[in-house]
Amino acid sequence: MIVTVVEVYVKPQHIDAFVEAVRENHEASVKEQGNMRFDILQSAAEPSQFLLYEAYESEDSSKAHKETPHYQKWKETVGPMMAKPRKGTPYRVICPADRSQW
Amino acid sequence: MIVTVVEVYVKPQHIDAFVEAVRENHEASVKEQGNMRFDILQSAAEPSQFLLYEAYESEDSSKAHKETPHYQKWKETVGPMMAKPRKGTPYRVICPADRSQW
Repeated sequence: MIVTVVEVYVKPQHIDAFVEAVRENHEASVKEQGNMRFDILQSAAEPSQFLLYEAYESEDSSKAHKETPHYQKWKETVGPMMAKPRKGTPYRVICPADRSQW
Repeated sequence: MIVTVVEVYVKPQHIDAFVEAVRENHEASVKEQGNMRFDILQSAAEPSQFLLYEAYESEDSSKAHKETPHYQKWKETVGPMMAKPRKGTPYRVICPADRSQW
């Protein structure tokens, strides 16, 4: 199991459009084979900062996400909305270790 | 719904002891009323860096976590293992918006 945590910095004037685009990406991503979670969070203190919590069963399924049409569409849509480049960090899962708890 | 993302930096010689302590904290925390998730992740690139994903139904249940005996025990146990102070960031939940999907 692997989780990629992506920090996203959006230009303030694009927050609403970003939320719309990321919701669409969420809805499609959770239907991918091997996806365990795809949570979208917004910083309580800085509404222009978001965090994507992308949990997959394997590195292969995580990589396959970036080949999907919805990822490609999302990437192109939100690209111009970014205040600075997104930062993705891959993590191994310690807990919960049981796949059924995802 | 609120998620606190905690970045943890552990002294390399304490990684194994930290994992043991954080597993115990996880097991007790997921049983708290109002807890939705309490994931423990380890950076794939930097094994001394961890991320705690603490999801609660409300601010009150999130705050109540810090009053529990297991939190207090964990805090005291891991304190000396830290390479630098932990950093916690609170987030609002955008997706999934349905409580049943947590």
